[in-house]
Amino acid sequence: MSKKLTSRVEDYSKWYNELVVKADLAENSAVRGCMVIKPYGFAIWEKMRAELDRMFKETGHENAYFPLFVPKSLFEAEEKNAEGFAKECAVVTHYRLQNDPDKPGKLRVDPEARLEEELVVRPTSEAIIWNTYKGWIQSYRDLPLKINQWANVVRWEMRTRLFLRTAEFLWQEGHTAHETKAEALEEAQLMNTVYADFVENFMAIPVIQGVKTESERFAGAEDTYCIEALMQDGKALQAGTSHFLGQNFAKAFDVKYTSKEGKQDYVWATSWGVSTRLMGALIMTHSDDHGLVLPPNLAPNQVVIVPIFKTDEEFEEISKIAKLIMSDLRAKHISVKYDDRTTFRPGAKFAQHELQGVPLRIAIGPKDLQNGTVELARRDTLTKEIVSLDILTNVVEGLMTEIQDTLFNKALNYRAEHTTKVDTFEEFKTVIENKGGFVSAHWDGTAETEDKIKEITKATIRCIPLDAVEEEGVCVYSGKPSLKRVLFAKAY
Amino acid sequence: MSKKLTSRVEDYSKWYNELVVKADLAENSAVRGCMVIKPYGFAIWEKMRAELDRMFKETGHENAYFPLFVPKSLFEAEEKNAEGFAKECAVVTHYRLQNDPDKPGKLRVDPEARLEEELVVRPTSEAIIWNTYKGWIQSYRDLPLKINQWANVVRWEMRTRLFLRTAEFLWQEGHTAHETKAEALEEAQLMNTVYADFVENFMAIPVIQGVKTESERFAGAEDTYCIEALMQDGKALQAGTSHFLGQNFAKAFDVKYTSKEGKQDYVWATSWGVSTRLMGALIMTHSDDHGLVLPPNLAPNQVVIVPIFKTDEEFEEISKIAKLIMSDLRAKHISVKYDDRTTFRPGAKFAQHELQGVPLRIAIGPKDLQNGTVELARRDTLTKEIVSLDILTNVVEGLMTEIQDTLFNKALNYRAEHTTKVDTFEEFKTVIENKGGFVSAHWDGTAETEDKIKEITKATIRCIPLDAVEEEGVCVYSGKPSLKRVLFAKAY
Repeated sequence: MSKKLTSRVEDYSKWYNELVVKADLAENSAVRGCMVIKPYGFAIWEKMRAELDRMFKETGHENAYFPLFVPKSLFEAEEKNAEGFAKECAVVTHYRLQNDPDKPGKLRVDPEARLEEELVVRPTSEAIIWNTYKGWIQSYRDLPLKINQWANVVRWEMRTRLFLRTAEFLWQEGHTAHETKAEALEEAQLMNTVYADFVENFMAIPVIQGVKTESERFAGAEDTYCIEALMQDGKALQAGTSHFLGQNFAKAFDVKYTSKEGKQDYVWATSWGVSTRLMGALIMTHSDDHGLVLPPNLAPNQVVIVPIFKTDEEFEEISKIAKLIMSDLRAKHISVKYDDRTTFRPGAKFAQHELQGVPLRIAIGPKDLQNGTVELARRDTLTKEIVSLDILTNVVEGLMTEIQDTLFNKALNYRAEHTTKVDTFEEFKTVIENKGGFVSAHWDGTAETEDKIKEITKATIRCIPLDAVEEEGVCVYSGKPSLKRVLFAKAY
Repeated sequence: MSKKLTSRVEDYSKWYNELVVKADLAENSAVRGCMVIKPYGFAIWEKMRAELDRMFKETGHENAYFPLFVPKSLFEAEEKNAEGFAKECAVVTHYRLQNDPDKPGKLRVDPEARLEEELVVRPTSEAIIWNTYKGWIQSYRDLPLKINQWANVVRWEMRTRLFLRTAEFLWQEGHTAHETKAEALEEAQLMNTVYADFVENFMAIPVIQGVKTESERFAGAEDTYCIEALMQDGKALQAGTSHFLGQNFAKAFDVKYTSKEGKQDYVWATSWGVSTRLMGALIMTHSDDHGLVLPPNLAPNQVVIVPIFKTDEEFEEISKIAKLIMSDLRAKHISVKYDDRTTFRPGAKFAQHELQGVPLRIAIGPKDLQNGTVELARRDTLTKEIVSLDILTNVVEGLMTEIQDTLFNKALNYRAEHTTKVDTFEEFKTVIENKGGFVSAHWDGTAETEDKIKEITKATIRCIPLDAVEEEGVCVYSGKPSLKRVLFAKAY
């Protein structure tokens, strides 16, 4: 715990990996590419989940649960979707193990227990869900159908990184069905806005709302809306996506409804999701060389109190004050932990809470007892001040908002400084190579150009921002006419 | 929706299956033995989960998340556990699909993408978790380690039934590590008590706390504590189990700790779990021939208000009153829904809410407008009364507790009437065959006798009750001496 992190400048990627493990967020498991989310990391994910769940319910969605497995014949029904995920599917082929006749005490797959049809471990649930919706939707009375699922999914990735890209990850996936195209489009856009609201206001991470180009779209979607965030190394991270699926899945699974007027038509669909990848975005947006920095909204403990004492009497007196502070803070719905462990010294506790990003640390020592004060340390700014006990609760309450805002604004400034308008390809290459960040440039709208630029610079079009202004220009690569700038970046 | 349920007397099993589907709780999916938990069913499960999660955290447990897959070599490390689950393991053998060269548009498993080591889809997580704990536990400072996981697990069952026995189900599994045997035993017993508390006081289902015989124990456990409930058809249902695992997993995965005194020893373990099977217990304890009956604690909507009107003016006036009632009830933390759908008539709404077990229904019609009253209907007793608006909130609040208590007491009476002390094997057979329920009888303590009784009567020893009194007697089957009665029953 005492060993220092590699600094970001030294090796950003190493810094990230060390931080995730040392701050007790997650670690690699014995299963290739699958992670263990440790209690502290999971407590942060639980906070995200609770807030998102509230937002989904407020916008009229209900939770349900669909099977982990998708029979191969259902999986392949929507061809584009199947094609998009086929290369990364874990497949169950057998349903029994038996004693290995050649190796006593060992097991082997029972060759007699082969499934008639292989089962795909869901990489996403459109197929199994739309096959179910077929039975649920007959008339306009059954619409809209707005369901969300919290689940684990598996995508067999070759190169994995904790939270950012893992073979198994946790996510939520919304799947809705609507009478009209307009209503489905509105839903897809609404949920993208819900994501933006959550990530900006709850996680303190500024995002660009946009729409994906055809080559970056979800397999099987007609439009993919997204929120894109910028990490501290100048790379972009897709933080959430919301897809307008047209009638593709309704047609693949024959889901029709009878309208008020008695007409039959296929329904219109959306799906949308965010995952434990958000943990990666959280870490890489706010954290520093000392460790994790948590916005108060996401902190399992917003405040930690550390007693500093030599005698038992001092400890007792400090504990009394700590308990009063805790009860005052809890009354204001501020979560607080009294770290009275006797197995660790104050220095070790300070280091741990700093590494784990607790927003505020209150230290109480013998001098504070005399003066009626405490020492208050902010994790985001690493500043300390002496605060009188009479005003402590109000100060802490104010700081909860202030820290949340400070983190957001800091990230917003970083993004502003790392968003560059360029008009030539030379400039494009220089910025992508040296400065990083978002590059705002004209593009001719073709996949060929997009591919070429990616090949040369490794930058992809992150999105066509929803608020992009109409502006005549020429494509930075081909010189062909363009009406809008799009956002390029290297991305996670 | 309007079609009546099969009655319990007619065909209990059919009644159950119909109720689960018609009340919108769950349905079978396209995947053999896997269910879809529908939004209404899932909302009930969410209530259970929230309350259990609160109870686990209050008793010092934290949540985490471990991989879905268990490499075969880890799975087989604890031999008894592996042997117990080997026959029902879904196994992932490949990680990629590809286009089927023989069938255009179809996919097949890519024969080149065979895993070096097969992955078992977790039927339970002891193996993967203990392999992880090995890295987390070095000294007494790391103990106790008290972690819970909410997850999906897969057990390939041949005969499945919605909620009661499904190939995939949702559950929580607690996994704890301790310094001493006494501490681990205490934890296993405590969590069994937490389950009993939850099932009795939250779900209104009385349970017997006991310990399993060796043959009914969890594979790999030294002792299995359990809570056993009695269903309306006289069959028992195991509602939760808590295992004392001794040092079996610590030894299999080499998890040692250094004590305060500097001595090395294996740690002591427990695991405990409840699952979506509790939904089956809920349904089969309280429901009747009209459909689901929900204790108020578990009802997604505790109260539903149905307007009855002919004119728009009446509807408007009723809606005003309904909104006042809703705001009063919500202030008392009572969940209430105003069913103002125009696509259904009041009769259809009544039928739906009855089928779905909403504890209280408030109907407001034109006469009520004149009289300042509403009609209040209880789902549990199917009784109705006219209640004046001035006292409505208090009446409803009182009924929330009363209905919860009534349901519990009804189930408790049923159990008392269906628990029979027998002292001869003739009597044993007659009771099991004709009356059903729990049979309290002396048993000689041997697995042979247990097996024989099971073979002849299909009844198993559900548990040795924790509160069994010491009493000299002779085994009902073998005539050998016995010091305690145990509980037999046919079981789910």
